[in-house]
Amino acid sequence: MIEINPDRLIGDLRRVADFGRYKTGVHRPTFSPQDIAAREWLAERMREADLDAVIDGVGNVIGRSRTSGPKLLLGSHAETQNEAGWLDGILGVVYGIEVARALRESGSRSDAGVDIGAWADEETHFLQFLGSRSFIDDLDEEEIDRAVNKDDGTPLREAIERAGLAGRPREHVDPSRYRGYLEAHIEQGYYLDHAGLSVGIVTSIVGLWQYRIAFAGEQSHAGTTGMGRRRDAGAALVRLAAMIDSEFPKIARERSVWTTGRIVLDPGAPSIIPGRATMLFQFRDDSLEQLERFEARLRELVRKVDEDGPCSCELIVVDRAVPKVMEPTFQAALEAAAELHVPGKYMRMPSGAMHDAQILAKRMPAGMMFVPSINGISHHYTEDTKEEDIVAGCRVFAEAVDRLLG
Amino acid sequence: MIEINPDRLIGDLRRVADFGRYKTGVHRPTFSPQDIAAREWLAERMREADLDAVIDGVGNVIGRSRTSGPKLLLGSHAETQNEAGWLDGILGVVYGIEVARALRESGSRSDAGVDIGAWADEETHFLQFLGSRSFIDDLDEEEIDRAVNKDDGTPLREAIERAGLAGRPREHVDPSRYRGYLEAHIEQGYYLDHAGLSVGIVTSIVGLWQYRIAFAGEQSHAGTTGMGRRRDAGAALVRLAAMIDSEFPKIARERSVWTTGRIVLDPGAPSIIPGRATMLFQFRDDSLEQLERFEARLRELVRKVDEDGPCSCELIVVDRAVPKVMEPTFQAALEAAAELHVPGKYMRMPSGAMHDAQILAKRMPAGMMFVPSINGISHHYTEDTKEEDIVAGCRVFAEAVDRLLG
Repeated sequence: MIEINPDRLIGDLRRVADFGRYKTGVHRPTFSPQDIAAREWLAERMREADLDAVIDGVGNVIGRSRTSGPKLLLGSHAETQNEAGWLDGILGVVYGIEVARALRESGSRSDAGVDIGAWADEETHFLQFLGSRSFIDDLDEEEIDRAVNKDDGTPLREAIERAGLAGRPREHVDPSRYRGYLEAHIEQGYYLDHAGLSVGIVTSIVGLWQYRIAFAGEQSHAGTTGMGRRRDAGAALVRLAAMIDSEFPKIARERSVWTTGRIVLDPGAPSIIPGRATMLFQFRDDSLEQLERFEARLRELVRKVDEDGPCSCELIVVDRAVPKVMEPTFQAALEAAAELHVPGKYMRMPSGAMHDAQILAKRMPAGMMFVPSINGISHHYTEDTKEEDIVAGCRVFAEAVDRLLG
Repeated sequence: MIEINPDRLIGDLRRVADFGRYKTGVHRPTFSPQDIAAREWLAERMREADLDAVIDGVGNVIGRSRTSGPKLLLGSHAETQNEAGWLDGILGVVYGIEVARALRESGSRSDAGVDIGAWADEETHFLQFLGSRSFIDDLDEEEIDRAVNKDDGTPLREAIERAGLAGRPREHVDPSRYRGYLEAHIEQGYYLDHAGLSVGIVTSIVGLWQYRIAFAGEQSHAGTTGMGRRRDAGAALVRLAAMIDSEFPKIARERSVWTTGRIVLDPGAPSIIPGRATMLFQFRDDSLEQLERFEARLRELVRKVDEDGPCSCELIVVDRAVPKVMEPTFQAALEAAAELHVPGKYMRMPSGAMHDAQILAKRMPAGMMFVPSINGISHHYTEDTKEEDIVAGCRVFAEAVDRLLG
């Protein structure tokens, strides 16, 4: 039994939210001064918990146990989205620190240990999963060279240098050291809150397939070009988007989601018929078969718009991340722990959002759990989770760690 | 009979295209150094044609005849769109200068005269119809104070000062001085070129009704928010745009046009469901009744999207410029002139584009004529008109002036 300290847990979560406080949330972009200060603070907490802690060359805070027995790697990301919530990411890091402290205090398990990773830039200020990909050795120097800040264009190299991390080695995983990776995170959705549950046991992280769809027509004057002569790339885009809107529900599964996040008409002036148009489109599902079904239908619709004319329509694949199933034994440990601490108030569910766990899962067994997000709000400073759910979640997390180390 | 000099006409058009030459076209934004240089050059040409010429406080070049008899005001705009054609606007100014010279040389009409206006910023780098609106006294100082450059945000006041025009008086029209206003312009469309005609006699300048349509839903995470819980403002926008696409053709007239020139999804990130969305929509027709019919249908569709939910949809009127009928006697004079110089090779037609003539028409009778645009290309550096059409057009223009002064 690992006994966590609720006051210490909540106190640390409140304290770390001071680094970049924004209204009721936090603004702590990757490699901002407040992000670096928070990472130094986390390293200090890890050292207090008897871990050897370093901040590596891409900002990961890695705390390693000195024990000789079985180990788990725990963690999540430490930065936030812009003007976002106080628990997204950091909750999992502080759970890890609290479990490390509680494990040491428990005495009975002196040979077992946990390492902690506070990953950098899961939130993609520069490069998605920068930290966790670097840690599993799936990121080369050239990709780091090319990356820039998505808001202001600052090169990643420059940001790393300003943060005082240039020249530091990048830490890499030794998979043989671990039984696996366990991550806790806020749900970022409404399923748990809506159902009145306290814990979600992640069955898989959904696959996310992303596309850029480019339409080319002919730019011309909106007053002098008759409707029959137009090759309006914006109108072609609207036709495709409307077809997706009517066709996708017919082939979707219950939790399938699809989103057009951006539309750009070029040149974007009120009196000019757009000569080019672009949309960013994505869909997610935890079934590879369903993802393939969506893509096949999308290709049909794109081909139809392209063949019907008068504009060309091209589908460009941006990403095809496959669903990542969480380790069954980890799911079982989480379920047993939840049955102990929040009996009947948990559910198994896929994760619609991406998480560092899907990266670590490439090198070791991985599991993940959620705590509820009030009203499902995420990536906004009003994001919140009830204190009782934060505490209960940490108890479940600690219990699962105990079982997996046993 | 006013006899124009084709070589002098073409020579001046070629010469003035040197101010801001860009590839085969011209880049001469309002108040750029090349725009001011071109205006000074035009003032010099006006003086050579025995006109008293000034550049006023908003950049208008006004050349006034010293004759005592009947007068017409001729003109068009002198700046260009960015990286645009060599004839758009300036053609009508140089036609005016050529007619002034030819009128003086003809001797027979020594009491009659033409004044010339080379208007500023019809192309809306800062403020649409800045020059012509100022000239007819329909522009107050506060509007000038507020205007900024649409590309780089430079305040209009600052641009005027840099151009060396600060403190100069704004010239204003004395309508009693004129029988009316006559403007020549390239068509900017394909109707004349397609029909193999040389001259278009403008019957009216179409009304242009513009709207901003704003959709409000709820921003949320594209992975964790199920389809049934979404309030996707972008999806609502696509539904309205698709309805316009299917409904407007059913009630349109032959030359009606409608355009969605810009779509913005907010925040515009691939993995965020847009909480807000905006589209800029406009339609044009030369019938006020048709414009009203379009707006009524648009209001119905907006109401339907708003009532069906889950997003709100609001229609904001940006502009409702009514169609401006050109003076019938001016149309008749242009038609008689065309029948003389290009028999059978002209047509009456509405102008789908906006022109300074619609502003001057608020104070005096106004007429307008077009020369063909090769392949209808406009607002692009490849815009062009055959030399023979430029010359024939000027002959028709001069003949119409002669008839209207007679």
